[in-house]
Amino acid sequence: MTPDESPLRAAPSFFEVVLHQRACREFSADPVSDGDLHQILEAATHAPSAMNHQPWVFVVVREEAARTALTTIMRELWEGGGREQTEGRVPDSLLHEVDLGFTKTLPEAPLLIVVAGDTGTAPLEQLGWSVYPAVQNLLLAANALGLGSALTTMGIFRGAEVQDITGLPPELVPMAIVPIGWPAVRLGPPRRIPVAQKVHRERYGNPW
Amino acid sequence: MTPDESPLRAAPSFFEVVLHQRACREFSADPVSDGDLHQILEAATHAPSAMNHQPWVFVVVREEAARTALTTIMRELWEGGGREQTEGRVPDSLLHEVDLGFTKTLPEAPLLIVVAGDTGTAPLEQLGWSVYPAVQNLLLAANALGLGSALTTMGIFRGAEVQDITGLPPELVPMAIVPIGWPAVRLGPPRRIPVAQKVHRERYGNPW
Repeated sequence: MTPDESPLRAAPSFFEVVLHQRACREFSADPVSDGDLHQILEAATHAPSAMNHQPWVFVVVREEAARTALTTIMRELWEGGGREQTEGRVPDSLLHEVDLGFTKTLPEAPLLIVVAGDTGTAPLEQLGWSVYPAVQNLLLAANALGLGSALTTMGIFRGAEVQDITGLPPELVPMAIVPIGWPAVRLGPPRRIPVAQKVHRERYGNPW
Repeated sequence: MTPDESPLRAAPSFFEVVLHQRACREFSADPVSDGDLHQILEAATHAPSAMNHQPWVFVVVREEAARTALTTIMRELWEGGGREQTEGRVPDSLLHEVDLGFTKTLPEAPLLIVVAGDTGTAPLEQLGWSVYPAVQNLLLAANALGLGSALTTMGIFRGAEVQDITGLPPELVPMAIVPIGWPAVRLGPPRRIPVAQKVHRERYGNPW
Protein backbone atom coordinates (compact mmCIF):
# COMPACT_ATOMS: atom_id res chain seq x y z
CA MET A 1 0.00 0.00 0.00
CA THR A 2 1.49 3.35 -0.96
CA PRO A 3 0.76 6.56 0.93
CA ASP A 4 -1.89 7.68 -1.55
CA GLU A 5 -3.92 4.50 -1.32
CA SER A 6 -4.55 4.61 2.41
CA PRO A 7 -8.28 4.23 2.98
CA LEU A 8 -8.13 5.91 6.40
CA ARG A 9 -6.21 9.01 5.44
CA ALA A 10 -9.11 11.19 4.38
CA ALA A 11 -11.24 11.18 7.53
CA PRO A 12 -10.18 8.61 10.06
CA SER A 13 -13.04 7.71 12.37
CA PHE A 14 -12.09 6.86 15.94
CA PHE A 15 -13.56 3.36 16.19
CA GLU A 16 -12.37 2.47 12.68
CA VAL A 17 -8.81 3.29 13.73
CA VAL A 18 -8.93 1.59 17.13
CA LEU A 19 -10.56 -1.63 15.95
CA HIS A 20 -8.18 -2.05 13.00
CA GLN A 21 -4.84 -1.20 14.55
CA ARG A 22 -2.25 -3.90 14.31
CA ALA A 23 1.48 -4.35 14.25
CA CYS A 24 3.30 -3.79 10.96
CA ARG A 25 6.82 -5.14 10.55
CA GLU A 26 7.41 -4.80 6.79
CA PHE A 27 7.88 -1.35 5.34
CA SER A 28 8.23 0.17 1.88
CA ALA A 29 11.02 2.59 0.99
CA ASP A 30 8.59 5.54 0.84
CA PRO A 31 9.66 8.35 3.19
CA VAL A 32 7.58 9.51 6.15
CA SER A 33 7.09 13.29 6.20
CA ASP A 34 7.84 15.52 9.16
CA GLY A 35 4.24 16.69 8.92
CA ASP A 36 2.90 13.20 9.48
CA LEU A 37 5.38 12.64 12.28
CA HIS A 38 4.35 15.85 13.96
CA GLN A 39 0.72 14.77 13.94
CA ILE A 40 1.69 11.39 15.40
CA LEU A 41 3.83 12.96 18.11
CA GLU A 42 1.15 15.51 18.95
CA ALA A 43 -1.25 12.62 19.56
CA ALA A 44 1.37 10.87 21.70
CA THR A 45 1.98 13.94 23.85
CA HIS A 46 -1.75 14.31 24.54
CA ALA A 47 -1.94 11.09 26.55
CA PRO A 48 -2.79 11.12 30.24
CA SER A 49 -0.07 10.58 32.84
CA ALA A 50 0.17 10.41 36.62
CA MET A 51 -0.36 13.92 37.97
CA ASN A 52 0.01 15.15 34.39
CA HIS A 53 3.79 14.89 34.75
CA GLN A 54 4.13 13.90 31.06
CA PRO A 55 7.35 11.97 31.74
CA TRP A 56 7.82 10.96 28.10
CA VAL A 57 10.66 11.80 25.72
CA PHE A 58 10.80 10.83 22.05
CA VAL A 59 13.93 10.56 19.92
CA VAL A 60 13.17 10.24 16.22
CA VAL A 61 15.99 8.28 14.58
CA ARG A 62 16.25 8.39 10.78
CA GLU A 63 20.04 8.08 10.28
CA GLU A 64 21.01 4.68 9.04
CA ALA A 65 23.97 4.08 11.36
CA ALA A 66 21.88 4.65 14.48
CA ARG A 67 18.96 2.63 13.13
CA THR A 68 21.32 -0.23 12.35
CA ALA A 69 22.84 -0.07 15.82
CA LEU A 70 19.39 -0.17 17.44
CA THR A 71 17.99 -2.96 15.29
CA THR A 72 21.18 -4.97 15.80
CA ILE A 73 20.60 -4.85 19.56
CA MET A 74 17.02 -5.96 19.05
CA ARG A 75 18.05 -8.81 16.73
CA GLU A 76 20.75 -10.01 19.12
CA LEU A 77 18.31 -10.06 22.04
CA TRP A 78 15.77 -11.94 19.94
CA GLU A 79 18.28 -14.49 18.68
CA GLY A 80 19.97 -14.74 22.09
CA GLY A 81 16.89 -15.84 24.02
CA GLY A 82 13.75 -13.98 22.98
CA ARG A 83 12.87 -16.37 20.18
CA GLU A 84 13.48 -19.42 22.34
CA GLN A 85 11.24 -18.04 25.11
CA THR A 86 8.50 -17.36 22.57
CA GLU A 87 8.49 -20.64 20.64
CA GLY A 88 5.52 -22.81 21.46
CA ARG A 89 3.72 -19.95 23.26
CA VAL A 90 2.32 -18.22 20.17
CA PRO A 91 0.89 -19.39 16.84
CA ASP A 92 3.56 -20.30 14.26
CA SER A 93 2.39 -17.56 11.89
CA LEU A 94 2.97 -14.87 14.54
CA LEU A 95 6.33 -16.33 15.54
CA HIS A 96 7.39 -16.24 11.89
CA GLU A 97 6.22 -12.64 11.49
CA VAL A 98 8.07 -11.45 14.60
CA ASP A 99 11.16 -13.46 13.65
CA LEU A 100 11.18 -11.90 10.19
CA GLY A 101 10.88 -8.47 11.79
CA PHE A 102 13.79 -8.82 14.19
CA THR A 103 16.08 -10.65 11.76
CA LYS A 104 15.32 -8.86 8.51
CA THR A 105 12.62 -6.24 8.05
CA LEU A 106 12.85 -3.80 11.00
CA PRO A 107 16.14 -2.36 9.70
CA GLU A 108 14.21 -1.39 6.56
CA ALA A 109 11.82 0.90 8.44
CA PRO A 110 12.66 4.49 7.46
CA LEU A 111 12.65 5.59 11.08
CA LEU A 112 12.56 4.40 14.66
CA ILE A 113 11.11 6.35 17.57
CA VAL A 114 12.84 5.64 20.86
CA VAL A 115 10.47 6.37 23.73
CA ALA A 116 12.01 7.05 27.13
CA GLY A 117 10.51 7.64 30.56
CA ASP A 118 11.81 10.20 33.05
CA THR A 119 12.78 8.44 36.28
CA GLY A 120 13.14 11.90 37.82
CA THR A 121 9.34 12.04 38.09
CA ALA A 122 8.69 8.52 39.41
CA PRO A 123 10.51 5.21 39.92
CA LEU A 124 10.74 3.09 36.76
CA GLU A 125 8.18 0.56 38.04
CA GLN A 126 5.64 3.39 38.27
CA LEU A 127 6.34 4.87 34.83
CA GLY A 128 4.47 2.28 32.76
CA TRP A 129 1.03 3.82 33.29
CA SER A 130 2.40 7.25 32.36
CA VAL A 131 4.36 6.25 29.25
CA TYR A 132 2.58 3.36 27.50
CA PRO A 133 -0.68 5.31 27.04
CA ALA A 134 1.40 7.85 25.07
CA VAL A 135 2.95 5.02 23.06
CA GLN A 136 -0.51 3.70 22.31
CA ASN A 137 -1.64 7.15 21.11
CA LEU A 138 1.44 7.20 18.89
CA LEU A 139 0.63 3.78 17.37
CA LEU A 140 -3.01 4.69 16.85
CA ALA A 141 -2.17 8.02 15.22
CA ALA A 142 0.24 6.30 12.82
CA ASN A 143 -2.53 3.87 11.97
CA ALA A 144 -4.98 6.75 11.48
CA LEU A 145 -2.65 8.17 8.83
CA GLY A 146 -2.28 4.79 7.12
CA LEU A 147 1.26 4.31 8.41
CA GLY A 148 2.51 1.05 9.85
CA SER A 149 4.05 0.77 13.31
CA ALA A 150 4.79 -1.75 16.04
CA LEU A 151 5.33 -1.56 19.78
CA THR A 152 8.65 -3.26 20.50
CA THR A 153 10.27 -3.48 23.91
CA MET A 154 13.08 -5.96 23.17
CA GLY A 155 15.70 -3.19 23.01
CA ILE A 156 15.02 -1.92 26.54
CA PHE A 157 16.75 -4.97 27.98
CA ARG A 158 19.98 -3.32 26.78
CA GLY A 159 18.79 0.17 27.69
CA ALA A 160 22.23 1.62 28.48
CA GLU A 161 23.34 0.96 24.90
CA VAL A 162 20.14 2.51 23.57
CA GLN A 163 20.93 5.55 25.71
CA ASP A 164 24.45 5.69 24.22
CA ILE A 165 23.15 5.55 20.65
CA THR A 166 20.50 8.21 21.17
CA GLY A 167 22.34 10.43 23.66
CA LEU A 168 19.72 9.93 26.36
CA PRO A 169 20.99 10.78 29.87
CA PRO A 170 20.86 8.09 32.58
CA GLU A 171 17.56 9.28 34.11
CA LEU A 172 15.70 8.96 30.79
CA VAL A 173 15.18 5.23 30.52
CA PRO A 174 14.23 3.62 27.16
CA MET A 175 10.81 1.96 27.43
CA ALA A 176 9.91 1.23 23.78
CA ILE A 177 11.27 1.42 20.26
CA VAL A 178 8.64 1.99 17.59
CA PRO A 179 9.44 1.52 13.87
CA ILE A 180 7.29 3.64 11.56
CA GLY A 181 6.85 3.49 7.81
CA TRP A 182 4.43 2.81 5.01
CA PRO A 183 3.27 -0.81 5.10
CA ALA A 184 4.83 -3.03 2.43
CA VAL A 185 2.13 -5.62 2.93
CA ARG A 186 -1.61 -5.46 3.37
CA LEU A 187 -2.31 -6.22 7.01
CA GLY A 188 -5.22 -8.41 7.99
CA PRO A 189 -7.54 -7.59 10.88
CA PRO A 190 -6.18 -7.90 14.43
CA ARG A 191 -6.79 -11.29 16.06
CA ARG A 192 -8.31 -10.67 19.47
CA ILE A 193 -10.05 -12.69 22.15
CA PRO A 194 -13.75 -11.63 22.33
CA VAL A 195 -14.94 -9.18 24.98
CA ALA A 196 -17.11 -11.84 26.61
CA GLN A 197 -14.01 -13.85 27.55
CA LYS A 198 -12.15 -10.89 29.00
CA VAL A 199 -14.86 -9.01 30.89
CA HIS A 200 -16.58 -9.95 34.13
CA ARG A 201 -19.67 -8.44 35.72
CA GLU A 202 -19.28 -7.31 39.33
CA ARG A 203 -16.91 -10.17 40.25
CA TYR A 204 -14.37 -12.27 38.41
CA GLY A 205 -16.12 -15.33 37.05
CA ASN A 206 -19.54 -13.75 36.48
CA PRO A 207 -20.10 -13.64 32.73
CA TRP A 208 -20.42 -10.30 30.99
CA MET B 1 -23.30 17.63 30.02
CA THR B 2 -25.98 14.99 29.63
CA PRO B 3 -25.68 12.00 27.29
CA ASP B 4 -27.69 13.64 24.52
CA GLU B 5 -25.59 16.78 24.40
CA SER B 6 -22.27 15.10 23.67
CA PRO B 7 -20.74 16.78 20.62
CA LEU B 8 -18.59 13.74 19.81
CA ARG B 9 -21.28 11.09 19.90
CA ALA B 10 -22.46 11.31 16.29
CA ALA B 11 -19.24 10.69 14.38
CA PRO B 12 -16.15 10.84 16.52
CA SER B 13 -13.08 11.63 14.45
CA PHE B 14 -9.84 10.03 15.60
CA PHE B 15 -7.72 13.14 16.10
CA GLU B 16 -10.62 15.04 17.67
CA VAL B 17 -10.91 12.30 20.30
CA VAL B 18 -7.19 11.90 20.96
CA LEU B 19 -6.37 15.59 21.21
CA HIS B 20 -9.27 16.30 23.57
CA GLN B 21 -9.11 13.39 25.96
CA ARG B 22 -8.70 14.34 29.56
CA ALA B 23 -9.44 13.03 33.02
CA CYS B 24 -12.94 13.46 34.40
CA ARG B 25 -13.52 13.09 38.15
CA GLU B 26 -17.04 14.47 38.58
CA PHE B 27 -19.95 12.45 37.29
CA SER B 28 -23.70 12.90 36.93
CA ALA B 29 -26.22 10.32 38.13
CA ASP B 30 -27.11 9.32 34.54
CA PRO B 31 -26.60 5.59 33.97
CA VAL B 32 -24.08 4.17 31.50
CA SER B 33 -25.61 1.59 29.18
CA ASP B 34 -24.26 -1.89 28.60
CA GLY B 35 -24.14 -1.01 24.90
CA ASP B 36 -21.77 1.89 25.49
CA LEU B 37 -19.69 -0.23 27.85
CA HIS B 38 -19.45 -2.99 25.28
CA GLN B 39 -18.14 -0.55 22.70
CA ILE B 40 -15.57 0.76 25.19
CA LEU B 41 -14.44 -2.73 26.16
CA GLU B 42 -14.24 -3.82 22.55
CA ALA B 43 -11.86 -0.92 21.91
CA ALA B 44 -9.84 -1.90 25.00
CA THR B 45 -9.50 -5.52 23.90
CA HIS B 46 -8.20 -4.47 20.48
CA ALA B 47 -4.98 -3.02 21.89
CA PRO B 48 -1.61 -4.53 21.02
CA SER B 49 0.24 -6.67 23.57
CA ALA B 50 3.52 -8.57 23.75
CA MET B 51 3.23 -11.60 21.46
CA ASN B 52 -0.49 -10.85 21.28
CA HIS B 53 -0.96 -12.55 24.66
CA GLN B 54 -3.77 -10.09 25.57
CA PRO B 55 -3.07 -10.47 29.30
CA TRP B 56 -5.87 -8.09 30.33
CA VAL B 57 -8.95 -8.80 32.42
CA PHE B 58 -11.72 -6.28 33.14
CA VAL B 59 -14.16 -6.41 36.04
CA VAL B 60 -17.04 -3.96 35.66
CA VAL B 61 -18.22 -2.96 39.13
CA ARG B 62 -21.61 -1.24 39.41
CA GLU B 63 -22.79 -2.46 42.83
CA GLU B 64 -22.57 0.23 45.45
CA ALA B 65 -21.00 -1.82 48.23
CA ALA B 66 -18.08 -2.89 46.05
CA ARG B 67 -17.65 0.59 44.60
CA THR B 68 -17.56 2.04 48.08
CA ALA B 69 -15.01 -0.53 49.22
CA LEU B 70 -12.77 0.28 46.24
CA THR B 71 -13.03 4.05 46.51
CA THR B 72 -12.43 3.84 50.27
CA ILE B 73 -9.11 2.11 49.60
CA MET B 74 -8.21 4.80 47.08
CA ARG B 75 -9.17 7.60 49.49
CA GLU B 76 -7.21 6.07 52.35
CA LEU B 77 -4.10 5.72 50.18
CA TRP B 78 -4.46 9.30 48.99
CA GLU B 79 -4.99 10.68 52.49
CA GLY B 80 -2.35 8.40 53.97
CA GLY B 81 0.55 9.61 51.82
CA GLY B 82 -0.47 10.18 48.21
CA ARG B 83 -1.59 13.76 48.75
CA GLU B 84 1.51 14.64 50.75
CA GLN B 85 3.79 13.24 48.03
CA THR B 86 1.95 15.25 45.39
CA GLU B 87 1.76 18.63 47.11
CA GLY B 88 4.15 21.15 45.63
CA ARG B 89 4.83 18.96 42.59
CA VAL B 90 1.71 19.87 40.60
CA PRO B 91 -0.30 23.06 40.05
CA ASP B 92 -2.75 23.82 42.88
CA SER B 93 -5.75 23.55 40.56
CA LEU B 94 -4.81 19.96 39.60
CA LEU B 95 -4.08 19.02 43.22
CA HIS B 96 -7.50 20.33 44.20
CA GLU B 97 -9.21 18.40 41.38
CA VAL B 98 -7.48 15.12 42.28
CA ASP B 99 -8.12 15.69 45.98
CA LEU B 100 -11.81 16.28 45.33
CA GLY B 101 -11.90 13.09 43.28
CA PHE B 102 -10.36 10.82 45.89
CA THR B 103 -12.17 12.35 48.87
CA LYS B 104 -15.60 13.03 47.41
CA THR B 105 -16.53 12.54 43.75
CA LEU B 106 -15.13 9.17 42.63
CA PRO B 107 -17.67 7.27 44.78
CA GLU B 108 -20.37 9.01 42.72
CA ALA B 109 -19.22 7.44 39.44
CA PRO B 110 -21.87 4.92 38.39
CA LEU B 111 -19.25 2.29 37.71
CA LEU B 112 -15.62 1.39 38.13
CA ILE B 113 -13.65 -0.86 35.80
CA VAL B 114 -10.89 -2.78 37.56
CA VAL B 115 -8.18 -3.71 35.05
CA ALA B 116 -5.92 -6.62 35.94
CA GLY B 117 -2.87 -8.12 34.24
CA ASP B 118 -2.20 -11.84 33.99
CA THR B 119 1.15 -12.62 35.62
CA GLY B 120 0.83 -16.11 34.14
CA THR B 121 1.90 -14.63 30.79
CA ALA B 122 4.78 -12.42 31.96
CA PRO B 123 6.29 -11.06 35.19
CA LEU B 124 4.46 -8.00 36.56
CA GLU B 125 7.29 -5.63 35.60
CA GLN B 126 6.82 -6.68 31.97
CA LEU B 127 3.03 -6.36 31.92
CA GLY B 128 2.85 -2.56 31.69
CA TRP B 129 3.41 -2.42 27.94
CA SER B 130 0.76 -5.09 27.40
CA VAL B 131 -1.94 -3.65 29.68
CA TYR B 132 -1.73 0.17 29.66
CA PRO B 133 -2.25 0.43 25.88
CA ALA B 134 -5.57 -1.38 26.45
CA VAL B 135 -6.39 1.01 29.28
CA GLN B 136 -5.64 3.93 26.98
CA ASN B 137 -7.96 2.49 24.30
CA LEU B 138 -10.61 2.20 27.01
CA LEU B 139 -10.21 5.85 28.08
CA LEU B 140 -10.20 7.09 24.49
CA ALA B 141 -13.30 5.09 23.59
CA ALA B 142 -15.16 6.47 26.60
CA ASN B 143 -14.17 9.94 25.46
CA ALA B 144 -15.30 9.17 21.91
CA LEU B 145 -18.76 8.42 23.28
CA GLY B 146 -18.80 11.60 25.36
CA LEU B 147 -18.31 9.71 28.63
CA GLY B 148 -15.89 10.82 31.31
CA SER B 149 -13.15 8.58 32.68
CA ALA B 150 -9.84 8.72 34.50
CA LEU B 151 -6.83 6.45 34.76
CA THR B 152 -6.22 5.85 38.47
CA THR B 153 -3.55 3.55 39.88
CA MET B 154 -3.73 4.48 43.57
CA GLY B 155 -5.73 1.34 44.40
CA ILE B 156 -3.11 -1.07 43.10
CA PHE B 157 -0.91 -0.33 46.08
CA ARG B 158 -3.44 -2.39 48.06
CA GLY B 159 -3.93 -4.87 45.26
CA ALA B 160 -4.71 -7.89 47.46
CA GLU B 161 -7.76 -6.10 48.86
CA VAL B 162 -8.86 -5.12 45.36
CA GLN B 163 -8.57 -8.81 44.43
CA ASP B 164 -10.73 -9.75 47.44
CA ILE B 165 -13.44 -7.24 46.50
CA THR B 166 -13.56 -8.28 42.84
CA GLY B 167 -12.85 -12.00 43.24
CA LEU B 168 -9.68 -11.82 41.16
CA PRO B 169 -7.34 -14.80 41.71
CA PRO B 170 -3.76 -14.13 42.88
CA GLU B 171 -2.22 -14.29 39.40
CA LEU B 172 -4.50 -11.54 38.06
CA VAL B 173 -2.93 -8.41 39.49
CA PRO B 174 -4.87 -5.12 39.58
CA MET B 175 -3.09 -2.48 37.46
CA ALA B 176 -5.69 0.30 37.17
CA ILE B 177 -9.13 1.34 38.36
CA VAL B 178 -11.08 3.45 35.87
CA PRO B 179 -14.26 5.31 36.92
CA ILE B 180 -16.71 5.89 34.06
CA GLY B 181 -19.77 8.09 33.89
CA TRP B 182 -21.32 11.11 32.22
CA PRO B 183 -19.33 14.25 33.04
CA ALA B 184 -21.00 16.53 35.61
CA VAL B 185 -18.78 19.41 34.56
CA ARG B 186 -17.61 20.74 31.22
CA LEU B 187 -13.96 19.78 30.93
CA GLY B 188 -11.45 22.20 29.50
CA PRO B 189 -8.78 21.18 26.99
CA PRO B 190 -5.90 19.01 28.21
CA ARG B 191 -2.82 20.93 29.35
CA ARG B 192 0.19 19.44 27.62
CA ILE B 193 3.82 20.35 27.05
CA PRO B 194 4.37 21.14 23.33
CA VAL B 195 5.82 18.54 20.98
CA ALA B 196 8.95 20.65 20.40
CA GLN B 197 9.93 20.27 24.06
CA LYS B 198 9.41 16.51 24.13
CA VAL B 199 10.82 15.38 20.79
CA HIS B 200 14.45 15.20 19.68
CA ARG B 201 15.84 14.68 16.20
CA GLU B 202 18.37 11.85 15.85
CA ARG B 203 19.89 12.43 19.30
CA TYR B 204 18.65 13.76 22.62
CA GLY B 205 19.27 17.51 22.72
CA ASN B 206 18.87 18.14 18.97
CA PRO B 207 15.73 20.22 18.55
CA TRP B 208 12.81 18.78 16.65
